[in-house]
Amino acid sequence: MPLKSKHLLGLECMPKEDIELILDTAVSFKEVLERPIKKVPTLQGKTVVNLFFESSTRTRISFELAERRLSADVVNFATAGSSIAKGETFKDTVKNIEAMKIDMVVIRHSSSGAPHFLAKIIDASVINAGDGTHEHPTQALLDIFTMREKFGKIEGLNVCIVGDILHSRVARSNIFGLKTLGANVFVCGPETLIPRDIEKLGVQVYHNIDEVIPKVDVLNVLRLQLERQNSAFIPSLQEYHKFFGITRKRLEKASKPILIMHPGPINRGVELSSDVADSEHSVILEQVTNGVAVRMAVLYLLGTMGS
Amino acid sequence: MPLKSKHLLGLECMPKEDIELILDTAVSFKEVLERPIKKVPTLQGKTVVNLFFESSTRTRISFELAERRLSADVVNFATAGSSIAKGETFKDTVKNIEAMKIDMVVIRHSSSGAPHFLAKIIDASVINAGDGTHEHPTQALLDIFTMREKFGKIEGLNVCIVGDILHSRVARSNIFGLKTLGANVFVCGPETLIPRDIEKLGVQVYHNIDEVIPKVDVLNVLRLQLERQNSAFIPSLQEYHKFFGITRKRLEKASKPILIMHPGPINRGVELSSDVADSEHSVILEQVTNGVAVRMAVLYLLGTMGS
Amino acid sequence: MPLKSKHLLGLECMPKEDIELILDTAVSFKEVLERPIKKVPTLQGKTVVNLFFESSTRTRISFELAERRLSADVVNFATAGSSIAKGETFKDTVKNIEAMKIDMVVIRHSSSGAPHFLAKIIDASVINAGDGTHEHPTQALLDIFTMREKFGKIEGLNVCIVGDILHSRVARSNIFGLKTLGANVFVCGPETLIPRDIEKLGVQVYHNIDEVIPKVDVLNVLRLQLERQNSAFIPSLQEYHKFFGITRKRLEKASKPILIMHPGPINRGVELSSDVADSEHSVILEQVTNGVAVRMAVLYLLGTMGS
Repeated sequence: MPLKSKHLLGLECMPKEDIELILDTAVSFKEVLERPIKKVPTLQGKTVVNLFFESSTRTRISFELAERRLSADVVNFATAGSSIAKGETFKDTVKNIEAMKIDMVVIRHSSSGAPHFLAKIIDASVINAGDGTHEHPTQALLDIFTMREKFGKIEGLNVCIVGDILHSRVARSNIFGLKTLGANVFVCGPETLIPRDIEKLGVQVYHNIDEVIPKVDVLNVLRLQLERQNSAFIPSLQEYHKFFGITRKRLEKASKPILIMHPGPINRGVELSSDVADSEHSVILEQVTNGVAVRMAVLYLLGTMGS
Repeated sequence: MPLKSKHLLGLECMPKEDIELILDTAVSFKEVLERPIKKVPTLQGKTVVNLFFESSTRTRISFELAERRLSADVVNFATAGSSIAKGETFKDTVKNIEAMKIDMVVIRHSSSGAPHFLAKIIDASVINAGDGTHEHPTQALLDIFTMREKFGKIEGLNVCIVGDILHSRVARSNIFGLKTLGANVFVCGPETLIPRDIEKLGVQVYHNIDEVIPKVDVLNVLRLQLERQNSAFIPSLQEYHKFFGITRKRLEKASKPILIMHPGPINRGVELSSDVADSEHSVILEQVTNGVAVRMAVLYLLGTMGS
Repeated sequence: MPLKSKHLLGLECMPKEDIELILDTAVSFKEVLERPIKKVPTLQGKTVVNLFFESSTRTRISFELAERRLSADVVNFATAGSSIAKGETFKDTVKNIEAMKIDMVVIRHSSSGAPHFLAKIIDASVINAGDGTHEHPTQALLDIFTMREKFGKIEGLNVCIVGDILHSRVARSNIFGLKTLGANVFVCGPETLIPRDIEKLGVQVYHNIDEVIPKVDVLNVLRLQLERQNSAFIPSLQEYHKFFGITRKRLEKASKPILIMHPGPINRGVELSSDVADSEHSVILEQVTNGVAVRMAVLYLLGTMGS
């Protein structure tokens, strides 16, 4: 029962069975990560290229570790000093890399749709590691894996994504994946940071975090992208924290403990207070571990498809 | 029958048998690249250092893939932030790297002759990955491999190298290798970009591309180094394209199809029109694949010499 | 007989038996480095992260080679473009990396004490690859290994460290290790570059290099950190060379040959004259080889502790 597609471009169109296959496979790889020898020979002799047109240490390292632990050969390609700088087109660059006989490409790009374009022009499997404001499917899969691990199943789970929904590929991928698996999805953030027509995706919109907290099992708190903060529509950090920051006091209003998630890196004191980030209900570091397991699962399923 | 030299510094003095040994060996490695498991254990436990004093993504990745597919340990060394920046001499830097017990060094350097100097001061095998305006032997070997693959042999083949011959190490290495194997070599470019005494190398000089096209089997079209274009002697891009750009219309004047080659990255619409670059007679992407096979052959032949 | 600590943070508190265990283990690994296949499978399936918050080519490559030759999986993390730049705390960054299930962290940091802080917050073994002006234990261990190799034992050996003792982590680690093993340690440098209370460490202080030369077996000459030379208290290079530069003429005044050591990179003509650096009594390049062997020993001893 292989995956339907040889690429992982996003969760928008991924069937339920495929998401579940990835999650189930990741369970085995998480066990590998607990062993003293955290390595399997599955992708020996396969080559994976990490094509990062947008810098990202943690996602790159997570993929690289997943690749090495599957015994793949890994080549890192970052934009600085590359042939892109010499005026070559994106298509020529990737066709060239493909001609070196590689098996999989992990791509991160600031333009939405870049991985889809790549998948159209090369034969190798393409894994989207984040494209513009579009999708970040492995992040959502690791988020969903973590929720499933804690609650046993996703169906009927009440999950609220908090923050800048408008610019967040993490939010979009989470919404698609969670809806496919039957969760009730809420989003909560300032009006200026919620897309206008988001209800069409079947999510409930809130602008008051205190109203939504009593309704949910999980808060998936997005990072406020401080580095993009020159835009006028983003409020001040203090204001943001006052209205949307997740604090212990706010959480006390819920009748039960709420699972706290965050894709990292955290701005402590902005989207989350420090005590909440470090509380016993926070699974932020477990998300990181699960990220390696989920990426191993995706690489394994795509990398062994033809064989 | 090993190679005569433990280094690959250039093709100027390489005997015919050595070039042919490399090309024949590359045939086997090209077969490895077609397999699902593109890896052999040949250089297990050997260490290759990629010493890139001049940035180059595609050549570095091609070498790195060749090294990994031979199971060598790979260490990348780029100039930025290195001890060179701390005022250490080139000699001290490389003597230090050698003292770490490495087996081969792949070096790219903006100074002509840097690999030769290196070969004199260290015991490890040295592979020239491009030195100033001097030589780029693996590029020429992969070009020649590609021509031999298409035409069966090099002897008697009519090959024209087009463009800035004066500054091109690719042109020089091609001329040496092709002449050694018995090809008829032509060069064509603006008068200011052809070295004065180049006829001494046994090549025929043309300044009119339309005159040379009917005479040749292969056009090896050089990249116009736009990044060096502050020099007064380089014409405008439009002018260059008008007089030397390879277009479908120009090629129609030949009585037979001409093989189109380019070392990349391409400036589409400058040295080549896009339709020519993508035509069925263009082998530009096959050159890239062959580059990995040829580099595996060189690394294998040099890396197993003593054993 | 394992090491007492699962970390290598410094030599200040390391017991004699542990230093000797590392040195003895390094003897075996130096033999591995002389073999055609310089690789052992000892750390297969273990992951080592090189966390370099301060750039360093030679130390990073030395560690990386040691790690690869023990068959570990290696991930390099440098600060530029990392999540540190996105405002994440040091603690969150390293807790995240740890959550990816890594076994050892090699850390270089410009702040003294960073490795100790790291060791407190993560479970993985921490190896200090240089922290501020505090310690650089693997450099001292390779220096001591080299002296022991040449003289048979450290006890009773007369060793002078020359240069900027005040800012040198290399000097500090050497002093701790050498004293523990019973050497007589001298330091020599300008008054402004010797810490005031250094006699408390049991070393003898000299400001006149010609006075100390007749008394010692080894001169370990520190690099003058030219890149930090904007400080007013560092003399001009000519002046420094005049008063403290080790020259052949100066060495002739000793009754026996003195072993010349330097951690590199050398400023030729400043702290050492070129002929001394290249003389038969200089072991500067052997130190580099020994560095790989010593780092293999440390990684091996820490990486196999639990098993």
